[in-house]
Amino acid sequence: MGGFFGVAAKTDCVADLFYGTDYHSHLGTMRGGMAVYGNSSFVRFIHDISNSQFRSKFEDDIPKMRGSLGIGVISDYEDQPLIIASHLGTYVIVTVGRIANLDKLAAEAFRGRTTHFSEMAGGTINPTELVATLINRENSFVEGIRCAQEAVEGSCSLLLLTEDAVYAARDRWGRTPVAIGRKDDAFCATMETCALPNLDYEVERYLGPGEIVRITPNGVEQLSSPREEMQICSFLWVYYGYPASCYEGINVEQVRYRCGAALAKGDDCKVDMAAGIPDSGTGHAIGYANASGISYGRPFVKYTPTWPRSFMPQEQRIRDLVARMKLIPIREMIRGKRVLFCDDSIVRGTQLRDTIRRLYDYGAQEVHMRPACPPLVYGCKFLNFSRSKSELDLAARKAIKELEGNDSAHLSDYADPTSHRHATMVDRIRGQLGLTSLKYQKLGDLVSAIGLPKCRLCTYCWDGVDSSRAQRSLLSLDAAADEATSKKNA
Amino acid sequence: MGGFFGVAAKTDCVADLFYGTDYHSHLGTMRGGMAVYGNSSFVRFIHDISNSQFRSKFEDDIPKMRGSLGIGVISDYEDQPLIIASHLGTYVIVTVGRIANLDKLAAEAFRGRTTHFSEMAGGTINPTELVATLINRENSFVEGIRCAQEAVEGSCSLLLLTEDAVYAARDRWGRTPVAIGRKDDAFCATMETCALPNLDYEVERYLGPGEIVRITPNGVEQLSSPREEMQICSFLWVYYGYPASCYEGINVEQVRYRCGAALAKGDDCKVDMAAGIPDSGTGHAIGYANASGISYGRPFVKYTPTWPRSFMPQEQRIRDLVARMKLIPIREMIRGKRVLFCDDSIVRGTQLRDTIRRLYDYGAQEVHMRPACPPLVYGCKFLNFSRSKSELDLAARKAIKELEGNDSAHLSDYADPTSHRHATMVDRIRGQLGLTSLKYQKLGDLVSAIGLPKCRLCTYCWDGVDSSRAQRSLLSLDAAADEATSKKNA
Amino acid sequence: MGGFFGVAAKTDCVADLFYGTDYHSHLGTMRGGMAVYGNSSFVRFIHDISNSQFRSKFEDDIPKMRGSLGIGVISDYEDQPLIIASHLGTYVIVTVGRIANLDKLAAEAFRGRTTHFSEMAGGTINPTELVATLINRENSFVEGIRCAQEAVEGSCSLLLLTEDAVYAARDRWGRTPVAIGRKDDAFCATMETCALPNLDYEVERYLGPGEIVRITPNGVEQLSSPREEMQICSFLWVYYGYPASCYEGINVEQVRYRCGAALAKGDDCKVDMAAGIPDSGTGHAIGYANASGISYGRPFVKYTPTWPRSFMPQEQRIRDLVARMKLIPIREMIRGKRVLFCDDSIVRGTQLRDTIRRLYDYGAQEVHMRPACPPLVYGCKFLNFSRSKSELDLAARKAIKELEGNDSAHLSDYADPTSHRHATMVDRIRGQLGLTSLKYQKLGDLVSAIGLPKCRLCTYCWDGVDSSRAQRSLLSLDAAADEATSKKNA
Amino acid sequence: MGGFFGVAAKTDCVADLFYGTDYHSHLGTMRGGMAVYGNSSFVRFIHDISNSQFRSKFEDDIPKMRGSLGIGVISDYEDQPLIIASHLGTYVIVTVGRIANLDKLAAEAFRGRTTHFSEMAGGTINPTELVATLINRENSFVEGIRCAQEAVEGSCSLLLLTEDAVYAARDRWGRTPVAIGRKDDAFCATMETCALPNLDYEVERYLGPGEIVRITPNGVEQLSSPREEMQICSFLWVYYGYPASCYEGINVEQVRYRCGAALAKGDDCKVDMAAGIPDSGTGHAIGYANASGISYGRPFVKYTPTWPRSFMPQEQRIRDLVARMKLIPIREMIRGKRVLFCDDSIVRGTQLRDTIRRLYDYGAQEVHMRPACPPLVYGCKFLNFSRSKSELDLAARKAIKELEGNDSAHLSDYADPTSHRHATMVDRIRGQLGLTSLKYQKLGDLVSAIGLPKCRLCTYCWDGVDSSRAQRSLLSLDAAADEATSKKNA
Repeated sequence: MGGFFGVAAKTDCVADLFYGTDYHSHLGTMRGGMAVYGNSSFVRFIHDISNSQFRSKFEDDIPKMRGSLGIGVISDYEDQPLIIASHLGTYVIVTVGRIANLDKLAAEAFRGRTTHFSEMAGGTINPTELVATLINRENSFVEGIRCAQEAVEGSCSLLLLTEDAVYAARDRWGRTPVAIGRKDDAFCATMETCALPNLDYEVERYLGPGEIVRITPNGVEQLSSPREEMQICSFLWVYYGYPASCYEGINVEQVRYRCGAALAKGDDCKVDMAAGIPDSGTGHAIGYANASGISYGRPFVKYTPTWPRSFMPQEQRIRDLVARMKLIPIREMIRGKRVLFCDDSIVRGTQLRDTIRRLYDYGAQEVHMRPACPPLVYGCKFLNFSRSKSELDLAARKAIKELEGNDSAHLSDYADPTSHRHATMVDRIRGQLGLTSLKYQKLGDLVSAIGLPKCRLCTYCWDGVDSSRAQRSLLSLDAAADEATSKKNA
Repeated sequence: MGGFFGVAAKTDCVADLFYGTDYHSHLGTMRGGMAVYGNSSFVRFIHDISNSQFRSKFEDDIPKMRGSLGIGVISDYEDQPLIIASHLGTYVIVTVGRIANLDKLAAEAFRGRTTHFSEMAGGTINPTELVATLINRENSFVEGIRCAQEAVEGSCSLLLLTEDAVYAARDRWGRTPVAIGRKDDAFCATMETCALPNLDYEVERYLGPGEIVRITPNGVEQLSSPREEMQICSFLWVYYGYPASCYEGINVEQVRYRCGAALAKGDDCKVDMAAGIPDSGTGHAIGYANASGISYGRPFVKYTPTWPRSFMPQEQRIRDLVARMKLIPIREMIRGKRVLFCDDSIVRGTQLRDTIRRLYDYGAQEVHMRPACPPLVYGCKFLNFSRSKSELDLAARKAIKELEGNDSAHLSDYADPTSHRHATMVDRIRGQLGLTSLKYQKLGDLVSAIGLPKCRLCTYCWDGVDSSRAQRSLLSLDAAADEATSKKNA
Repeated sequence: MGGFFGVAAKTDCVADLFYGTDYHSHLGTMRGGMAVYGNSSFVRFIHDISNSQFRSKFEDDIPKMRGSLGIGVISDYEDQPLIIASHLGTYVIVTVGRIANLDKLAAEAFRGRTTHFSEMAGGTINPTELVATLINRENSFVEGIRCAQEAVEGSCSLLLLTEDAVYAARDRWGRTPVAIGRKDDAFCATMETCALPNLDYEVERYLGPGEIVRITPNGVEQLSSPREEMQICSFLWVYYGYPASCYEGINVEQVRYRCGAALAKGDDCKVDMAAGIPDSGTGHAIGYANASGISYGRPFVKYTPTWPRSFMPQEQRIRDLVARMKLIPIREMIRGKRVLFCDDSIVRGTQLRDTIRRLYDYGAQEVHMRPACPPLVYGCKFLNFSRSKSELDLAARKAIKELEGNDSAHLSDYADPTSHRHATMVDRIRGQLGLTSLKYQKLGDLVSAIGLPKCRLCTYCWDGVDSSRAQRSLLSLDAAADEATSKKNA
Repeated sequence: MGGFFGVAAKTDCVADLFYGTDYHSHLGTMRGGMAVYGNSSFVRFIHDISNSQFRSKFEDDIPKMRGSLGIGVISDYEDQPLIIASHLGTYVIVTVGRIANLDKLAAEAFRGRTTHFSEMAGGTINPTELVATLINRENSFVEGIRCAQEAVEGSCSLLLLTEDAVYAARDRWGRTPVAIGRKDDAFCATMETCALPNLDYEVERYLGPGEIVRITPNGVEQLSSPREEMQICSFLWVYYGYPASCYEGINVEQVRYRCGAALAKGDDCKVDMAAGIPDSGTGHAIGYANASGISYGRPFVKYTPTWPRSFMPQEQRIRDLVARMKLIPIREMIRGKRVLFCDDSIVRGTQLRDTIRRLYDYGAQEVHMRPACPPLVYGCKFLNFSRSKSELDLAARKAIKELEGNDSAHLSDYADPTSHRHATMVDRIRGQLGLTSLKYQKLGDLVSAIGLPKCRLCTYCWDGVDSSRAQRSLLSLDAAADEATSKKNA
């Protein structure tokens, strides 16, 4: 998915920029980048962080960076930040999101002949460069950003660095979060608020959907007010966000405890221990244990000193071993035990099946699973986090295919937890995973655990509801009407 | 402290060696090294791992290593492994421990003129090279290792790689652990058994104090039997060891739960949450929460993606920020709460004081601390883990100095938890840290939580008892007597 | 200045591309880059070569490159090659030359809003990206390249790589050379023909001014025929070109021998030795020695093992020493000797003055200088090689300023070797350099040594003649007339 | 072969050390190293320089080095400098030479059990570490160095750095040179005097065979006076030495001119051009051209910007091309021409044969060869420069084998230039190389060109004379006699 951090300080901003960006490392694994403006020029560095940490890679660049304005990014795919010269002047830009209609927008851009793309590593158009061309169409940054927000299908939050300010804009539907932090001599914009406390920032406020602000060392100016409707991604609380972060003022770790408590409520499972699959299941499991009175334990321990991320060795004989290296089972805590596990969700279930098999190998008597969200039935179209996972690989869809001979039949029925089809599907997944019992979270309970009205949350991957489509349809109708009108008048 | 891993396999051993060594990364932060024997030659690599992970640094070396015998090491100070040519042939060696009498041994070696040391990075003699010269004094590896075990004051466990075997030897008093693992086509020697499960090894057995074995792909031969007396370091369970490891067959995570439970027993502290200072306090806190029925929670979250270790940037403006970057406080879980924290121990207390102050800054109402072991009164002489911490910096000793005007007065009385002096000291520490309450573990409860007889554990840092000294005195008397006798007879 | 090499082969082209590009290393010191098309994608690498050789930097990239079409570049300033996505498709581009009107062209591009520049390292627009935007204005590569050739003031030769061909285009006035090489299974385009023999290519032909060709593994197709007028840079033979190269079929080393011979003709200087300032004066000196019968010798030897290029250490205490490190004087060959030196030219003369002083320090009795070309009076406007040297820093201009109190007075008179002013200027330079005698080459002799008609050579830096201006004026008049006409008709 | 540079300065010595060592880069291709003493400690760096230049590799280390005493080395095989702790104190050492009896000396060292070797990269004992053990046997550095000089068969010059001085010692027979340089605030020891002029040193004096001195910032103290007999390697002037260097006060470039002149004397070869095979043949060819009146020319030009050394790419498809990449032929200077080439020597002749074939391919009419020394008949036993070339691979020995069916028959006769056998051998080599004519230098002419008495030069590779053997025999006899005497007396 990716994450970004920007800062406008009265003094040098590089240390804040470095650590603030670093605190988004859990959101992306491929590229990291930073840029500052100082001494009348932009200085930028981009590195591949796929086999090393952000901090190790950028350490040598720090002495070359000086300035009071800067932006940084952790990116899942493309090189960022980009330095763009245009009729608006020279600026630097980072984006986070998913441009579903990238090819269409590029084709449109080519139509005028005068647009090209040069950030082509990997042979594809760099989405951030595309967003820059959309911004450049207009007469000012704020109009340009609005133009980009409208044109992009999917989502696109961004930071933009000029010689005198940092612009921050949240995507039109508020699918990704952006918060403003303040301290005595600086303001910052961040996706993850967990970046703030150790850099001494307080949360100033959370940007609303589509809101655009201009940040200088002296303050934050609203350039475009937020839209009413919001579709923030529920998965941020369930899985993507860092436990110490808040979105819309709601803390992730606490949502996970509430998720776990909701799973425990009415669950009469008799087990010796409640545990989480590290790291994403940990919070849910603590919530379950505290609510149920069942002892919490760690039958798997993550080897954190060296497995913070998915490191991929070049050599095959080494590579084969990687998948299961992170988690170390403790035989003494598994043998002869009935264990209940919480995890954030079940996506494809392949790795989970191996984990469960290892538990039995180590002598587990029973293994129960409690995912913190309902079965995933629909693949995400709005953010990049399911890019490599085809919708049809989802454990639920594979089960549906086996049951129906067709992976698209009765989807809404399967998504309904009260239906017979749903029960059959869950039992099939349970059987395939080799679980003693499997109970998914109810969507209503998840929404309650988060605490926002359902209409302000995107729950598409569970129930297929896309609130933005309806709206877009209306808008298209309006636009079509407008177009018809203007044609008539021409 | 450092850790090592050696393997003798029927096929190529490099993947096992790579990951097996990597699983000791929590034991050292400065150097990593690996050597294999294959294609009629030894291939060795050593890297600085102070600002990068072991795996990142060695990735490029893997393709250059092939062989069925290998040893690896994570080291806190010196370059290892060393390749040594001697009258015993050419071999490779790694050591873990502390040679308290290094200067004396070096001076002795120089006396004969024909010994030199060439591994002099940093200007000091490499302890592992010194151990090699001790081994070379004798006619065989086993005699040489015995010679080294006798000569070294402190501790020295080691692995030694020749063209046809890996020798493993545990230090004379068993202060550090060495275990043997087996699988179908290989045997290994490891300090941490957490290296075994993911590489498919089972624990074959734990070496006894001073025991020496010769490991080939076909089996493990005992060359020198274990000594009776053992003084294994208690701190391995309390702090140093990885939760998934066992020493003497006793799992670390479970000891920590028992420590926490012991702390909870009879503690009537009224709090909203029991928590651990990550990572070392986590297990103890879980044990406390489960035993007390108080909710477990994580008001601090460690930023694991990039803070697995103490990374030290070159630049001062960046460096100042490092100390507190790892742990992120969650205001929502702290504000208005009464929190009880477990931690492994209180050493100097300086960082802890900052942490506690931050908790109050974030609105904590009460902060209670429950260390999993008694106050540290004596600095360790046997292992390297307190090297940078002067005995007089210990929180307990500083409190004693303030109370007595002298940091060495009445030490044994202060170490006695039933004494008035002890209570005064603890209250002083509590006050300095700004804690609502502070209760240390009792040594008896800690020993019970570990589960070994006290006489087989080293508890020197708490009660000042050095069982090996008495024995060494006896041995010296014996030796003196022997010498006298032999002189008489000459 | 920079240089490029492109190849279209029936088999893998990477080795040819690697070495062919490397043979242009003498033309640039900042950046190197290569791109290939293979496996349905473009793969590109760019490295800083300012403190390392091209070959060392690209060695690791070679295994990642596979393909039968490729282009490479050695560049003095900017990152190249660029990968450009446009309405013409995706292509890769490198350029060599100087875009004197870059700012004007960029401003024009911005006017339409839809053009941006993203290759902004160093804060300035990348000239190659600008050229790409000029190409993109048209409907095809050939029209686009013609458009760029017309728009650019200065010079711009280029290579362009698509999925099925390499396009090569020489700049409109033929200021820089481009030659086509052929062998059994490949064709190549190169600036330096010295790249051909060791890669088994023969010179197929030299492109004419403004000529555009399309090169495939099967042949070379002319897309745009050459223009009549040519203004190839004379300095290529005098200094820039490699001795083993030919331009317009004329070998550099031989031109230098003829230059030296022309200097010797009628020179009655009595000396013990004729020598060259390495490397650029060597060929001229050999020519002088052979023609005059004076012994050739090497009182200065270049330390080639490590001083092939201008290496710039970071640290000041080291840096101060660099300037004179390359050339080592041999006292035994200098002491008590009368030495005549040839060099390519005298630019600012500062380094030369130091060299001459050292010769006297080492005991030289007389030092005579014979530059292979006339005094430089005008700074180059057409190629990048005088970028860092202001026109006013030229030794001739400084002498003129001292004589006239004004550095722009009577320039054409000073440039005339038969004038009194010229003689006065030369004597002043001689005196400042501390030379026993100084005789410049006559322009007519230089032109004869090259062997092309004067009207086809650019001799601007010596005589201020810009043949292209007259022509451009005519064209502008035509254009103005056209514009006037069209306005009238509108 | 290798080379070294040491310096003792009143101020920081690092810049001098860096460049002074760099000026020995032509003597070794594998390892480079430097060490300084400053701030109470030794700082040392060693790098692989096989695919990169010394200066590039050490640039990053410079800021970490500070001190007024330092030594550096360019080494063909082993890691150097070594830091050695011993009863003499801690010191740093570099050596240049060849220890023919290394295995024997190592075996002796092991006999006492207390010696080990730890510098074992590549699996063999590091000769410099062995020399250190020889030095450590004695009571002082000077006695130790003398001991090493006596024990080593072959040659061993060395530098030794302590906390207060640099010791320099020339090998016992003076096979390799060592000179002392001085300037106002520093003294240095160097193998190549070409390192001196650009660092502002003057040659103070040349050490004699076996001489040992102690160098401090204040002066040079003789610790052991030179021996009478000398056997300095003649090849230093013919090939190994840098043109700007002097040995025994005799400049290399001038010796080469005299070699060329001697070849020209009485040679009536009618050719169009005299040329040298770059770089080693250049000086000889200039001498030939100047003496004969034949035009000097460069039909081959070396691509110096990137081919200063033998760079070996990893990948085979690239590697195959390397051999001939350095030299670029100029067709215009070869076609239809009769060319006479000088080269330093003919070793195996394989690469030369390819070069000659290329000349004919490029249209040469006649190719004549004049090596600057006689045929190589015996492989060197005293220095490391023929290590990879078996004696039996020598062109002369292969010719002898073909003529005699045995490569060791009549060697002294073949080495005699007046013999019929010699003439037959030369003609055979000529035929195999495809030369129009081949005339070797006479040994007497070579000796005259150098200008030292023949008895002070080692000419073993041409005439098989080993002056040191006779002497050693005498010494051994003496020693045997002494031993016999002492035994009798015991």
